[in-house]
Amino acid sequence: MTRREPTVGDLSERALLTRILNVVGDASQADVGPGDDAAVITVPDGRVVLTTDTLVHGPDFRLAWSTGYDLGSKAAAVNLADVAAMGARPIALLVALALPDTLPVAFVDELARGLRAACDRLAPGCAIEGGDLTVSDTLTIAVTAAGVLDGAAPVLRSGARPGDTVAVAGELGAATRGLALLFDRFRTADGIPVEVDAGLLTEAERADLAAQLRPAPPIALGPVAARAGASALMDVSDGLLLDATRMADASGVTIALDGPLGDDALRGGEDHALLACFPTAAALPAGFLRIGAVAPRGEAAVTVAGAAPSGRSGWDPYRDWDTQRG
Amino acid sequence: MTRREPTVGDLSERALLTRILNVVGDASQADVGPGDDAAVITVPDGRVVLTTDTLVHGPDFRLAWSTGYDLGSKAAAVNLADVAAMGARPIALLVALALPDTLPVAFVDELARGLRAACDRLAPGCAIEGGDLTVSDTLTIAVTAAGVLDGAAPVLRSGARPGDTVAVAGELGAATRGLALLFDRFRTADGIPVEVDAGLLTEAERADLAAQLRPAPPIALGPVAARAGASALMDVSDGLLLDATRMADASGVTIALDGPLGDDALRGGEDHALLACFPTAAALPAGFLRIGAVAPRGEAAVTVAGAAPSGRSGWDPYRDWDTQRG
Repeated sequence: MTRREPTVGDLSERALLTRILNVVGDASQADVGPGDDAAVITVPDGRVVLTTDTLVHGPDFRLAWSTGYDLGSKAAAVNLADVAAMGARPIALLVALALPDTLPVAFVDELARGLRAACDRLAPGCAIEGGDLTVSDTLTIAVTAAGVLDGAAPVLRSGARPGDTVAVAGELGAATRGLALLFDRFRTADGIPVEVDAGLLTEAERADLAAQLRPAPPIALGPVAARAGASALMDVSDGLLLDATRMADASGVTIALDGPLGDDALRGGEDHALLACFPTAAALPAGFLRIGAVAPRGEAAVTVAGAAPSGRSGWDPYRDWDTQRG
Repeated sequence: MTRREPTVGDLSERALLTRILNVVGDASQADVGPGDDAAVITVPDGRVVLTTDTLVHGPDFRLAWSTGYDLGSKAAAVNLADVAAMGARPIALLVALALPDTLPVAFVDELARGLRAACDRLAPGCAIEGGDLTVSDTLTIAVTAAGVLDGAAPVLRSGARPGDTVAVAGELGAATRGLALLFDRFRTADGIPVEVDAGLLTEAERADLAAQLRPAPPIALGPVAARAGASALMDVSDGLLLDATRMADASGVTIALDGPLGDDALRGGEDHALLACFPTAAALPAGFLRIGAVAPRGEAAVTVAGAAPSGRSGWDPYRDWDTQRG
């Protein structure tokens, strides 16, 4: 007789919640943390920054490729990046987990560890302050992140002005190269994802894979950009070209990228780098690299090395989604 | 040639988002509403109340029984109730929708209308300030609600003291009777949910059904209870017996319900009534009815008419969940 690995369906909701809180609960910084009807969080300057982003099995991750730790880490990181992209400092996450009965409990433990580790590493002082557990056929992780502005004005994507310097902090293109590795090298001939054998990868490839599975965007540089006087700020989740177009459209300007830039950097999604504009007089803060300048609005929202780019503009979350696989 | 009804898969993410924002976007009250990386919301007393609750197709609703409007309305209401249960006033919702490609676009329109209508009806001044759209095989609605305390202290479930009056505001048992109607009367012999024919129902049954599909908890009475000096407060989502046990355990007391109380009221979930304790000296605010008193902790966490209740204590979200149905 073999002992089956315990799954979510073997535990009561309360027992599962207790396991998760054993990992994340003692980090709570809130006035009221997990355990009551809602959390109560102090935001000293009277403004709270709120964002939500969901990872769904299939379009956003595959269990053959992502460990629970990867998944928790990524679910935290993508939400922390949206807070940072307002120039704010993350202080709390709420985590809503919809879990299949058949999911191993050990996977949920790892997921909680990944959530906590991403907070500790990317946004010290940010903790999981609440959440929700439900059962679902489709593993789904919906995270809400809250942040504070510490007295600064939020930095919108609509504030870019002609003459501003355009800069970026963080990776561009690594996450999409990591995804290509998974699709090209870790699927069967029938397209079924198989577990990653890191021994088959070079060091550079392992870095790209980590950027895809456990992105580590420069969260602390969001408030740094705000204090340095950034006129516009957003995170690059759908590719530089598409997200710069959104910033240019919101600001009524053209963003002229110096270029040349490779296809991965221009069109690759999921890096969650910070795209910022700074008035010419402002010195670029450490961690930001100049990639262009803001011009009065011309025909194209974005130019690269002086020319309007052609072809697909960015990341399509519907691409390659196939319910039979992964 | 017949024209197929447009589905989520026919629209781009942006087009779908635009449709939703056409319904909910103009109600925004935030400093920064939908459209940037995150929302920015003013909370004048420097504290924000945050909660998240998810509805998943299957365990939480069936498409044969719930319209899009029902679903949006319920997703809002259950989260508003958790804010009210802290004594707070809801001011913002974030809505993360994970939608099957095959879902009719008209259903999403109705869902947005239901979300907005529930806010307008139950918590005027609360609006949808952000969200997220993803594709999923399993229709999932993860809502986060934010609220403000307007200078009052949050009312926890741990504050009940011997001698307090126990009171409730809102329905007890109606939602579970509504669910029983659906299971008993609107399924095929094989257990497949079929559309509700309201003509087959009495007026009382229609009210029970509405309590299940579009609950309308007394959100405004949360802050009223706080101002009236409530010592403990929570929402009754899993049945009075189970939730009163949670409050009694958190407070280290016994909650002695006057009784007798029917099984629906004691064990029926999803009503989202407010369970409150008030110091004896405090007058019960309008809308609250006395149902018992707080006693020093005895053997049982909860007694009904002097005796410890037996049998199943409350609502089990895993009950009757069957992936092949609904």
